Amino acid sequence: MAKPLILVTNDDGITAPGLRALVQYMKELGDVVVVAPDSPQSGMGHAITLDNTLYSQKVQIDLESGAMAEYSCSGTPADCVKLALQELLERKPDICVSGINHGSNSSINVIYSGTMSAAIEAGIEGVPAIGLSLCDYSWEANFAPCGPFVQKIVRESLENGIPNGVVLNVNIPKTEDKGIHGIKVCRQARANWKEKFDKRTNPMGKDYYWLTGEFELLDHGEDTDEWALSQGYISVVPTQFDLTAYHAIQQLNTWDL
Amino acid sequence: MAKPLILVTNDDGITAPGLRALVQYMKELGDVVVVAPDSPQSGMGHAITLDNTLYSQKVQIDLESGAMAEYSCSGTPADCVKLALQELLERKPDICVSGINHGSNSSINVIYSGTMSAAIEAGIEGVPAIGLSLCDYSWEANFAPCGPFVQKIVRESLENGIPNGVVLNVNIPKTEDKGIHGIKVCRQARANWKEKFDKRTNPMGKDYYWLTGEFELLDHGEDTDEWALSQGYISVVPTQFDLTAYHAIQQLNTWDL
Repeated sequence: MAKPLILVTNDDGITAPGLRALVQYMKELGDVVVVAPDSPQSGMGHAITLDNTLYSQKVQIDLESGAMAEYSCSGTPADCVKLALQELLERKPDICVSGINHGSNSSINVIYSGTMSAAIEAGIEGVPAIGLSLCDYSWEANFAPCGPFVQKIVRESLENGIPNGVVLNVNIPKTEDKGIHGIKVCRQARANWKEKFDKRTNPMGKDYYWLTGEFELLDHGEDTDEWALSQGYISVVPTQFDLTAYHAIQQLNTWDL
Repeated sequence: MAKPLILVTNDDGITAPGLRALVQYMKELGDVVVVAPDSPQSGMGHAITLDNTLYSQKVQIDLESGAMAEYSCSGTPADCVKLALQELLERKPDICVSGINHGSNSSINVIYSGTMSAAIEAGIEGVPAIGLSLCDYSWEANFAPCGPFVQKIVRESLENGIPNGVVLNVNIPKTEDKGIHGIKVCRQARANWKEKFDKRTNPMGKDYYWLTGEFELLDHGEDTDEWALSQGYISVVPTQFDLTAYHAIQQLNTWDL
């Protein structure tokens, strides 16, 4: 049987340690092609490049990477996936894996996540897809304990098939804390960010802001991704891009529209 | 009773005719404050500004606008809403309306939409919110026929309350075609974009791409937004930011994870 073709991408940029680790794990499962942003794209959500040119070039980041080919791209994570599928890959990949992100994309973070937008873009195009994130923002985060779990999730996805219209959002607890206890299928916890804007004045006397904030968990269910992570488990949330709130349709139909 | 406080934003930028029209419609319903990007932000998805400074300034775009105050912001649509809610508004608005976008945000376009990302950001923060789009990309689009319908939808939203966790995605058919027949509550049609990259060479000899594509409708249900629009109706899709694919949880639990 032919080896699966695995598209690897991310939002931290093609040189990020999390992506380099993911390439190592994936080359044991199939043929790997990397198409990833040439610079960090965190917080890009599902942005795409409409009014600007896109550059892409074949690169070699790491002599030992074991990838069949690597391309950097000037665009967003979603752009990378579009370009990979339409221009750069010779055939449709068997799976797209995005990450491993330096930092959490659990709960409401999925909405802002460039990592997940790449996976969702692949899902929209009919390619099974997984976004992977480690809950550690450090560039020196220890990805090593993730390896066997990530391989297991990807292997199971290839074997069982991810349901149509669904993309997996995988978050991995910070491994220094208490080790990884296993994997749990979860729902997205309700939460938001309590923003705080840090207002400053630039050297020219003009005010500007830095966006900062605190994560506010509004959900104490024991079936959520936040709960699983807090207990040392990897969370797997099946995530969809049909955003229809079906439960609200009946209610809206009672309005005088 | 105090007049409702209405936050108006968009992704086409604060000078866009669609936003100016929306301000006109909204000032008949309440007190209007505008916080919108200082330049076009189409296709920004739910991007937020994490690694860069945000500027905002009080501006007067239109002497006759009737808005209580207007602020332009250097960030994305989601940034505008965060800044409005935390820094610029004196109290929580009663509703946030985003648009009127120049171009469709129906079906899968909701995923890429800056217009909807602003509305979703407000929804996450507990503010009732509506994204509004006219299916006409022209800067000279005729917004006039939208007015009474937009006012009706906003008035009904204020009276009935939009369900928690739900944001309305409103799309308005191009009015030249056959007039607006009414309003339908719909689900998001399944669709994707068939990308085509237009590959060119720049004057320095380097290849680059323009992203182009064709919308591919994969869904012929008569309860979708695309169907309603094709019949001359305004589509209202209740849209949620809990992306969990609940129907897939059971299936994933049968995997060997």
